[in-house]
Amino acid sequence: MFNLDPRLAADSIFVADLPVSQLRLMNDCRFPWLVLVPRVVDAVEWTDMDDERQAGLLSEINRAAILLRAIAPCDKLNIGALGNIVRQLHVHVVARQVGDAAWPGPVWGSGQAQPYDDALKRSRMEFLRQQLGA
Amino acid sequence: MFNLDPRLAADSIFVADLPVSQLRLMNDCRFPWLVLVPRVVDAVEWTDMDDERQAGLLSEINRAAILLRAIAPCDKLNIGALGNIVRQLHVHVVARQVGDAAWPGPVWGSGQAQPYDDALKRSRMEFLRQQLGA
Repeated sequence: MFNLDPRLAADSIFVADLPVSQLRLMNDCRFPWLVLVPRVVDAVEWTDMDDERQAGLLSEINRAAILLRAIAPCDKLNIGALGNIVRQLHVHVVARQVGDAAWPGPVWGSGQAQPYDDALKRSRMEFLRQQLGA
Repeated sequence: MFNLDPRLAADSIFVADLPVSQLRLMNDCRFPWLVLVPRVVDAVEWTDMDDERQAGLLSEINRAAILLRAIAPCDKLNIGALGNIVRQLHVHVVARQVGDAAWPGPVWGSGQAQPYDDALKRSRMEFLRQQLGA
């Protein structure tokens, strides 16, 4: 059975279940930042997935990139599967802007997350779900 | 025409041309670290590639992961496409070990690279090319 890692659950907000992965918004308003968590039991490495799931997740990464660009213009997308702290396989897709809180370094391990306030969280979630439905 | 970014050229060593990307070894002996540079003119983002090239590059990422595991046991693979400093599309595949020079943080922007000495560089390159040929 698929169980979401408790740290991923605490740090991010459920957006939608896509065919392969659960799409979540990182609760850090410094960056437009999505996380895809494949619903594959015990997957730790990208290479733990079979070819079909890899292809499906790749398609969902492309979809996440489109969603992020719809939120705001971005100078660079960052895509990463690290998992040094949370071992459950998850893929980050982050919209970076020149001069953002971690620029030009990586977002991982950079400063403290700034959680969304209620109003911004609500509007962002509505926007993401509307875009996914469109 | 495909031109390798001068910074990528300076920081890494040519290993082989794969169908989609040029495979290079990062010249930093702190981590077994490969870089795949797709030979796609002007590609900056993963999403700049068509589906066929994306699938091909994904297959080469899997191949890089196998190569890294052949070099040494690893606790976690890190895969990342950032490009905040070098815009030319390139994908990092890094073998991480608990307690390595950047653990558990990301390798990008962490400390100074330690170039290979000649003997280790030669033996690693021979090993990689042998594995690729096998």
